[in-house]
Amino acid sequence: MSNLSPELRALIESGPLAHLTTINRDGSPQVTVIWIGLDGDEIVSGHMHHHHKLRNIERDPRVVLSFDAPHDRDAVRSPYAVVRAHATAEPSEQAWDLLDRLARVYMRPDSVFPAPKAPGYIARYRIERVSGVGPWVPESR
Amino acid sequence: MSNLSPELRALIESGPLAHLTTINRDGSPQVTVIWIGLDGDEIVSGHMHHHHKLRNIERDPRVVLSFDAPHDRDAVRSPYAVVRAHATAEPSEQAWDLLDRLARVYMRPDSVFPAPKAPGYIARYRIERVSGVGPWVPESR
Repeated sequence: MSNLSPELRALIESGPLAHLTTINRDGSPQVTVIWIGLDGDEIVSGHMHHHHKLRNIERDPRVVLSFDAPHDRDAVRSPYAVVRAHATAEPSEQAWDLLDRLARVYMRPDSVFPAPKAPGYIARYRIERVSGVGPWVPESR
Repeated sequence: MSNLSPELRALIESGPLAHLTTINRDGSPQVTVIWIGLDGDEIVSGHMHHHHKLRNIERDPRVVLSFDAPHDRDAVRSPYAVVRAHATAEPSEQAWDLLDRLARVYMRPDSVFPAPKAPGYIARYRIERVSGVGPWVPESR
């Protein structure tokens, strides 16, 4: 069974900048802003380097991805999502290709990922819990 | 000395939805999406209830606030900010007034905060480190 609703799938495929939260060795939070995509029912991200966030994932797979839809000032409610996930990160020959695919979502349909093609890392996020998609009532919880 | 640059101040005052990351009792991250504003050189948020995130702040003041500027598909670089901060939360008679002031930023200039006026809580965030404001080069770190 998937936690990936049609609404969440559509929001991810629209290309929202995703805030990835991992946990540092000292227990404090680390947040970076990344591109994300889908591979089946999993969220994926590509990385050209073995970043701090990937080392955090390897030590503690409990992460959160959160992202919002374009802000609508006519509504109290802008759609957003907070996704709690179990993350894994592996070296991959396909990291650049994933980033190049996402460049056409996050930039322009004819964009090419602006970095030399090389091996990298792919992180996979198994969705565990989703909150917040759809109409937003401020401070409703 | 303040870590609040003119660029960061302008981004905050533009009304970006802020992703607040706190740490749960079990060490996992918690993320909620909130409104933020400025009070002098501190970031502030208003809350009508003693939310889970406020209890997390009371136990562990190490938080991250992150937010992005409107997405510009002509640029590789959309401005965003990741702010590591020391947070405190206190009961306040002014929570609703803060939320009402922010409603005019996050909604419309004539909006009123859509909840009954009542005492609440104000969280204050002392900025410790800022990254990411300004042009964004994907995966540059």
